[in-house]
Amino acid sequence: MIKNINVRSWVLKILENVTTIEQMEADTAKLKANACAVCAETWEDRNKNQTPHCRFGEDGICCKNCSMGPCRITPKASRGICGADAHAIAGRNYLRTIAAGTSAHSDHAREILHVLLGSSPEGNYRVRDEQKLIRLAQEWEIPTEGRDVYDIAHEVAETGLHEFGKIAGTQRFIKRAIPARQKVWHDQGIEPRAIDREIATSLHMTHMGNTADAEALVRQGLRTSLSNGWGGSMLGTEITDILFGTPTVWNTEGNLGVLEKDMVNIVVHGHDPAFSEMVVTAAEVKELVDYSRSKGSKGINVVGLCCTANEIAMRHGVRMAGNFLQQENAILTGAVEMMCVDVQCIFPSLSSLSECFHTKFVTSSPIARIPGSLYVEFKPETAFEQAKDLVRMAVDNYQKREPSRVFIPEHKQTATVGYPCEQIIKHLDGVTNSHVDEFGSYRPAIDAIKAGVLRGAVAIVGCNNPRVRPDYSHFEIMKELLKNDILIVATGCAAQVATKAGLLQKDAKYLCGAGLRRVCDLVNIPPILHMGACVDISRMMLLANGIARDWGVDTTQIPVVGCAPEWMSEKAVSIANYVVSTGLDVYLGIEPQVKGSSQMMELITQGTRKITGGGFIINKDPHELVTNIISGIEAKRTALGI
Amino acid sequence: MIKNINVRSWVLKILENVTTIEQMEADTAKLKANACAVCAETWEDRNKNQTPHCRFGEDGICCKNCSMGPCRITPKASRGICGADAHAIAGRNYLRTIAAGTSAHSDHAREILHVLLGSSPEGNYRVRDEQKLIRLAQEWEIPTEGRDVYDIAHEVAETGLHEFGKIAGTQRFIKRAIPARQKVWHDQGIEPRAIDREIATSLHMTHMGNTADAEALVRQGLRTSLSNGWGGSMLGTEITDILFGTPTVWNTEGNLGVLEKDMVNIVVHGHDPAFSEMVVTAAEVKELVDYSRSKGSKGINVVGLCCTANEIAMRHGVRMAGNFLQQENAILTGAVEMMCVDVQCIFPSLSSLSECFHTKFVTSSPIARIPGSLYVEFKPETAFEQAKDLVRMAVDNYQKREPSRVFIPEHKQTATVGYPCEQIIKHLDGVTNSHVDEFGSYRPAIDAIKAGVLRGAVAIVGCNNPRVRPDYSHFEIMKELLKNDILIVATGCAAQVATKAGLLQKDAKYLCGAGLRRVCDLVNIPPILHMGACVDISRMMLLANGIARDWGVDTTQIPVVGCAPEWMSEKAVSIANYVVSTGLDVYLGIEPQVKGSSQMMELITQGTRKITGGGFIINKDPHELVTNIISGIEAKRTALGI
Repeated sequence: MIKNINVRSWVLKILENVTTIEQMEADTAKLKANACAVCAETWEDRNKNQTPHCRFGEDGICCKNCSMGPCRITPKASRGICGADAHAIAGRNYLRTIAAGTSAHSDHAREILHVLLGSSPEGNYRVRDEQKLIRLAQEWEIPTEGRDVYDIAHEVAETGLHEFGKIAGTQRFIKRAIPARQKVWHDQGIEPRAIDREIATSLHMTHMGNTADAEALVRQGLRTSLSNGWGGSMLGTEITDILFGTPTVWNTEGNLGVLEKDMVNIVVHGHDPAFSEMVVTAAEVKELVDYSRSKGSKGINVVGLCCTANEIAMRHGVRMAGNFLQQENAILTGAVEMMCVDVQCIFPSLSSLSECFHTKFVTSSPIARIPGSLYVEFKPETAFEQAKDLVRMAVDNYQKREPSRVFIPEHKQTATVGYPCEQIIKHLDGVTNSHVDEFGSYRPAIDAIKAGVLRGAVAIVGCNNPRVRPDYSHFEIMKELLKNDILIVATGCAAQVATKAGLLQKDAKYLCGAGLRRVCDLVNIPPILHMGACVDISRMMLLANGIARDWGVDTTQIPVVGCAPEWMSEKAVSIANYVVSTGLDVYLGIEPQVKGSSQMMELITQGTRKITGGGFIINKDPHELVTNIISGIEAKRTALGI
Repeated sequence: MIKNINVRSWVLKILENVTTIEQMEADTAKLKANACAVCAETWEDRNKNQTPHCRFGEDGICCKNCSMGPCRITPKASRGICGADAHAIAGRNYLRTIAAGTSAHSDHAREILHVLLGSSPEGNYRVRDEQKLIRLAQEWEIPTEGRDVYDIAHEVAETGLHEFGKIAGTQRFIKRAIPARQKVWHDQGIEPRAIDREIATSLHMTHMGNTADAEALVRQGLRTSLSNGWGGSMLGTEITDILFGTPTVWNTEGNLGVLEKDMVNIVVHGHDPAFSEMVVTAAEVKELVDYSRSKGSKGINVVGLCCTANEIAMRHGVRMAGNFLQQENAILTGAVEMMCVDVQCIFPSLSSLSECFHTKFVTSSPIARIPGSLYVEFKPETAFEQAKDLVRMAVDNYQKREPSRVFIPEHKQTATVGYPCEQIIKHLDGVTNSHVDEFGSYRPAIDAIKAGVLRGAVAIVGCNNPRVRPDYSHFEIMKELLKNDILIVATGCAAQVATKAGLLQKDAKYLCGAGLRRVCDLVNIPPILHMGACVDISRMMLLANGIARDWGVDTTQIPVVGCAPEWMSEKAVSIANYVVSTGLDVYLGIEPQVKGSSQMMELITQGTRKITGGGFIINKDPHELVTNIISGIEAKRTALGI
């Protein structure tokens, strides 16, 4: 009883400490005033101007794939000029979306592989996790005995690069999956071949005059997505770990309050850590720190934004300024000397917005060229020198900051981040009884699920999307799941909502049901595990796969599901499809743009279940969606007889 | 004087013999009556229902690349939600179009390479042009001396397949280009890397949050298109020649009149000849011909449609039923027992249309799955047996034809086809003075151009498009160019307009100016040279390159241009870009869908000239367009001082 009273008082304390969506919105409103002061437009204005959206596009029944059109399906026109119906058109658009998402994640991996190929003991990029390198080399049957680490690294890099274009065979990583899953992929003909080939095949199938069969398009979507999840993305994650270290647990902070009034603020934004790692390192160089002090600041404050934030937070504890829809807000604080971006999810509006302030907006990749930015093409060979130059430029820019325009919202939260599979296993090993159980297994978690102490787990992932109240769905769903003893693993912008709200603190256990709270206590973890950037959803696949393996069932049977309440990008559609291909259900808060085709709607919600065991559950109401999730998890439990 | 009178009487005779667009339209009208009789819809109906088209799509300023949207640029909304403006949106759409077109042509080549990889002396697919194989092997430094032909073939196939996904280096075929052109590509940073990589890069650059700079998008478009024209397409052409023989000159016939009232009619339609070659061969098997006679027919009549028609016409003299917008007409004759399709430009409407008649509609490729078709997945190992089964099925179907429903238009024309570069050179050798000139050169043609006997040459290519009166622009432009002593080379649907009209006869010289007529007489060629399918526009690049080489100037200087009066597909946009990358101007009768961006319009018409020397000239009026072409050619001549 005394214990319960304690818990209750803690709950109250935690609830008081949590940053609410309303508080976040109040900060945004103040920053919006800063925007108005300089007549700057933000996404809120543009969203208003773009609403209502074109219904044909929203429903996926507008076809622009040849110049006879564009065509669109209407009551009077049930087919495009070529004869493609709503199902063909929506299916083709959907497959192209998956192909584009796959290209983005996989191209990111390709860049990292090229960095590994150029790594050297004296170079800018070195091997930080030798053990992981050796393990991967052994997995790929690359000789390691008595070889120089960099010889191995270069062979691993070349082997990885061949996964994009090899002329025969399937993705190497699919052998990591449990045999039951491999059999599904094989029997269903969706084992992914070379990554770029699946992308090209998808474009070819959707070219005018080719596939008009919705199921064939969905199947190719699953196959292409697998070349991402168990191909490109997994390569991206593995090689990033080898180059920059496998993430470990860090305490850090998140939200715009991490910007410092008296320091040179540099925001790194994007996805590929090769650039941001160098900026972080350069900002620690004593000479530059001294230089920043000589310019009247108290030092250099590098913070992350979007997935770049996740990458550097879990490798260096670097603080996180926020997620996707906060990118303009960072500049609106008037306190950012420089924003350096690499690839993906970069608003082109940042260049004109920066011009309203003193902020230098630096682009660094030929993949993401933005007019009005300062373009510094980042090269591995000169990366560190380039990063130092940029930091120096940011320092020089500090004096141009206009104090009267500065508004840094005070909200920030502490967060414990960095739970890749290796860390999860390590924590589970801590509660393993060494006399009766084996180490290095997910068995303690499985036992907790079987016992009902934990009901299951949900991977909450994905972006923000102005179609819904930003961050709100994530927040509501997370709170409800925790209350219901469902562990959460999170990546990307979803992980950052948790950070900003304060849900990545270990004390957030007091928001949980008794079972999950007990697990958090025993294993010494927060109830939401930060697993990284969106490319790291591959880690979640390995987690689900490991649980299924140690459980002795197929992935589609375990009470583990995915949830993307506010997804926005084509990458997200590719991800959702590889999660489904892995056998897991995915709960979506935003509708995929195929509504105009009953066949497509049936295929993505039911049809894929016959192929992979997984499917989409779509509900735009977050409270209903979380109820759906809980029912889904309970149904999986019932089917397992637990 | 007597000579002139003769010419005039011949002109009259030829003009009388030409099939006019009006006559073709009258045939279509009669077939349309057949459609009405069975309540079948055709493209004309669908085109009517789809008109007017969405202006945002037509102007290229609708963005569907993430689920925040769709967004569109309007007077009140100058940017999408992310901040992308009209230039970024139109540029991204344009680059995706090029990527999709590149994927189609290149994937076609990949299939053919896989067929070569599986070729064997006893198999269904054998090497027919050993010399071309050896030449290619030598070009690629693959040992040939004392090796078995099939060993060489397999190594060539593997080397070709690596062009799609190699991890470093650029396309092998770019070394075929004259040094001046190679230098342009190198200096401008548009040398194409692995084909699939350029496709994936294009998708990545256009993914939400990446490139918003129109020029960067256009540059990547040029690079990607080069991986098609001097990569995938060229591979497709070379390997097809090796497997099925380099085309030679054939006399054949074209237009729907090639369907036979008393024979089993099989139409092969699509692009990849691996399938159609087998059907053509199977239909010649005595046992099947006898079987067809036993069923009351006079034999088996295989005819081609679309680019498949071009492929088999120039290798076997097989007759051509028509081009893209005639595919439904073929079925509407009620006389087609079977239509077998492979990939690209296949109307999905063919399945429901076939059901209105007795026609069996057979799909054969996983790339082009169409609901309602009979799907027979074609495998190289069993190809000939499958083809025989299909031919037998078509024969069995003959008795189901309903004579009362049959209407075969009478129009057909004779045509001389099959002028790849090798045949052009061979014909030019015929007029070379062996005492003073070298053989195997384009010099005789160059001399004729320099002398002004020929003013220049135009490559007329591309599709039909209901946006304009079908075939009309092709026909009008061709007649005018011939009159002005401009030689025409043609491929694809453009070549088939010439076929149907009767302009591929050698007698069409009487429609030409005196200079061109004299050249036709001397060299013994028709004034329009049929160079093949759309994938064979790579042959045109080698032709232009050869002329520039033998002339000693850059390709951008010679009075040779491209023209696509009725282009329709994404392939066409990729092609137009690689022609521009090769330095040639391209005259378009249909507007690329970027009109909503002044920057993009400037870039494609002027901007590329600074990069490659070539650009687009766009004019929807065919008579004005041909005037533009003639001025353009004369301007090139003036610049050369001739």
